[in-house]
Amino acid sequence: MEKSMLVFQTDFTYKEGAVCAMYGVVKSVDRDLEIIDGSHELPQYDTWSASYRLYQSMKFWPKGTIFVSVVDPGVGTKRRACVAKTKDGYFIVTPDNGALTHVKKEVGIETVREIDEDINRLKGKDTEGVAIFHGRDLFGYCAARLASGIITYEEVGPEYSIDEIVCHKIIEPTIENKVIKGIFEINDPNFGNLWTNIKTSMFFENGFNYGDDILVKIYNDDLLIYNKIVKFDKSFGMVNKGEDIIYNNELMKIAMATSMGSFVNKNSLGFGHNWKVEFSHNE
Amino acid sequence: MEKSMLVFQTDFTYKEGAVCAMYGVVKSVDRDLEIIDGSHELPQYDTWSASYRLYQSMKFWPKGTIFVSVVDPGVGTKRRACVAKTKDGYFIVTPDNGALTHVKKEVGIETVREIDEDINRLKGKDTEGVAIFHGRDLFGYCAARLASGIITYEEVGPEYSIDEIVCHKIIEPTIENKVIKGIFEINDPNFGNLWTNIKTSMFFENGFNYGDDILVKIYNDDLLIYNKIVKFDKSFGMVNKGEDIIYNNELMKIAMATSMGSFVNKNSLGFGHNWKVEFSHNE
Amino acid sequence: MEKSMLVFQTDFTYKEGAVCAMYGVVKSVDRDLEIIDGSHELPQYDTWSASYRLYQSMKFWPKGTIFVSVVDPGVGTKRRACVAKTKDGYFIVTPDNGALTHVKKEVGIETVREIDEDINRLKGKDTEGVAIFHGRDLFGYCAARLASGIITYEEVGPEYSIDEIVCHKIIEPTIENKVIKGIFEINDPNFGNLWTNIKTSMFFENGFNYGDDILVKIYNDDLLIYNKIVKFDKSFGMVNKGEDIIYNNELMKIAMATSMGSFVNKNSLGFGHNWKVEFSHNE
Repeated sequence: MEKSMLVFQTDFTYKEGAVCAMYGVVKSVDRDLEIIDGSHELPQYDTWSASYRLYQSMKFWPKGTIFVSVVDPGVGTKRRACVAKTKDGYFIVTPDNGALTHVKKEVGIETVREIDEDINRLKGKDTEGVAIFHGRDLFGYCAARLASGIITYEEVGPEYSIDEIVCHKIIEPTIENKVIKGIFEINDPNFGNLWTNIKTSMFFENGFNYGDDILVKIYNDDLLIYNKIVKFDKSFGMVNKGEDIIYNNELMKIAMATSMGSFVNKNSLGFGHNWKVEFSHNE
Repeated sequence: MEKSMLVFQTDFTYKEGAVCAMYGVVKSVDRDLEIIDGSHELPQYDTWSASYRLYQSMKFWPKGTIFVSVVDPGVGTKRRACVAKTKDGYFIVTPDNGALTHVKKEVGIETVREIDEDINRLKGKDTEGVAIFHGRDLFGYCAARLASGIITYEEVGPEYSIDEIVCHKIIEPTIENKVIKGIFEINDPNFGNLWTNIKTSMFFENGFNYGDDILVKIYNDDLLIYNKIVKFDKSFGMVNKGEDIIYNNELMKIAMATSMGSFVNKNSLGFGHNWKVEFSHNE
Repeated sequence: MEKSMLVFQTDFTYKEGAVCAMYGVVKSVDRDLEIIDGSHELPQYDTWSASYRLYQSMKFWPKGTIFVSVVDPGVGTKRRACVAKTKDGYFIVTPDNGALTHVKKEVGIETVREIDEDINRLKGKDTEGVAIFHGRDLFGYCAARLASGIITYEEVGPEYSIDEIVCHKIIEPTIENKVIKGIFEINDPNFGNLWTNIKTSMFFENGFNYGDDILVKIYNDDLLIYNKIVKFDKSFGMVNKGEDIIYNNELMKIAMATSMGSFVNKNSLGFGHNWKVEFSHNE
């Protein structure tokens, strides 16, 4: 049987030797394992982004792929270290600290197991007294053993109830009087776009169509920050450089961008539960 | 027959899940494909840099290697998506938006084909309505099928004339009265060096030799920005820390640097057609 | 016999085509070689950091792994290019410019050989006149030939005395009157932590235990910058967000951090021989 690939995402960056040490552990478990960088530039300590990035990319990988997610502000404390098996056949090795939020809700977790540190933690190499680098000593090592077939999923450690999985609160969008209300739930930190929690299908159900001019109001808590008519279209190039646009993003959700610019920086916006957005018919 | 390697370059960065999703598509087409990061930190929307980076690195790879270049400000518009076959035996999968400029001129394109989206675009996974991520849905997917042997080069889609390839204007250097005039055509954004369009052989033909002090004038359009005697030598360490130097770069072209410093930042310079540089004998 | 893996660390970044060209050379020597990114974001010209990062991660890799380290401010000058064999069975391909400092001291170098440029330098592809890119033309090429088995270690070039290896000065910590004095010898540039040269075992020998409040004085040369009682504990989460902590780092040495913050930025600190730190009992 082919060994599973390992896709890593962390907030470690490549600025020092942490990723290198972690990958060395994997290759020392089994030289044949294939390691892929998902991202090592997640925002520091941001378990919400860790959760979203897993959800964003997971379904494009072959079934059986093992994702190792290490955004771990609580390393060395009582938070659980776990391996979750998703309903669609992937594995996620992660601290149980909110990183499973979106996958649990959108895809479903079939079972989850707490990693048994007595068995699945690196031994030797002067690591036994180290409490601050579970990416290397626990998550990377355990994931490598699972991928290699040295342990089965059952041998990760004891199962616990999926109801005990730590999840962030998720806000659902609403429609009332033909006004759609949602939040910016995540950003594209590279291009400066913002992604809402509103499915594009909801837009069409509300009578919005590509080419329409739509009234957009953005609030930070209750403060109105942005109040403009913006075109809804298929891609950035449908408006002029520097103009804002509402578009259907890569996950079939509504997002906003500035053509060849940063919507976030231009308008001083952010994402999170307090960044509310309303779309209404322009009449 | 061995499958071709896939070398990717984009302006996506690793800050979010785009590269991960794109690579997942490749691995879902064929688990055995080998993916190499060329760069995911190209300047945003900069099809000139995309073109230059292909030219800079391509010849060092084994023949048959497939380069996937996704700097795509026009995604979702009428610009063509193509696969070009170079005269020296490489493939480039890219939007036809200027990214083939340097390879076409310096190496030559043998044939070019427009990607047939009916056949070579990802299906399922809720991607059919997405117009903004051709790296994942079109370029990555098509390149993976080509590398894997699922499609031949002919099956990419219909051939079109190489005369129709979109190219940026290239400026040629000149010699007149023993003065060489060129431009800074690209930078080294890491170390802050600037690379001219002047072949080092032209320098020697003009009677410049390593160790010479050369008069350098740099203009931004018609404004003289820099006017100094600078040493021409083989490497940075031939001058003291903080001193400027003219050197032969890794592509056998003339470049300028500051030893252990940034020539760009120190002198507030840039690159492009309006950044002109003149080298004359110091007498 | 299985071919050795190649782990690269440089200060090149991925912002342009240098890494891509270097890896192309490796794959042109032998398509089967496995390349792993150690880091391409080492601080520019910083041979001390290069040395430390090798020491930090090397032991976690399988024996026989070949590390290629290219932080090379003296490229094209008289500094030696070498391959060192460590006492614990790894190879390091690097300019001999201080990058072997920590491995030589902590692990030991068994033998070192100067790379013979007549044999182990890339030929063709218009590279013969290039003096500024040994990562591509010399270190990457030579390492690939060694990993592939095209050359033996002996065929790298002539051996020279390990006493001639260029090393940075290393400062040792001291204990006097139950006060431990050391330096911050390196940083974690991502999270903003500082790592001392003091083994955690020295802390315990001095009667410090997890949970203790310890008096910390930090000097920049002779200037007292920081003078506080700080908790010594196992991990960041043992103190509140924003509080400083003394902890046992991933190499079993004493380090300092700010919980979910940057200790370096918050306190305007740095690392190096002039950043001295003292730990004494709080009484």
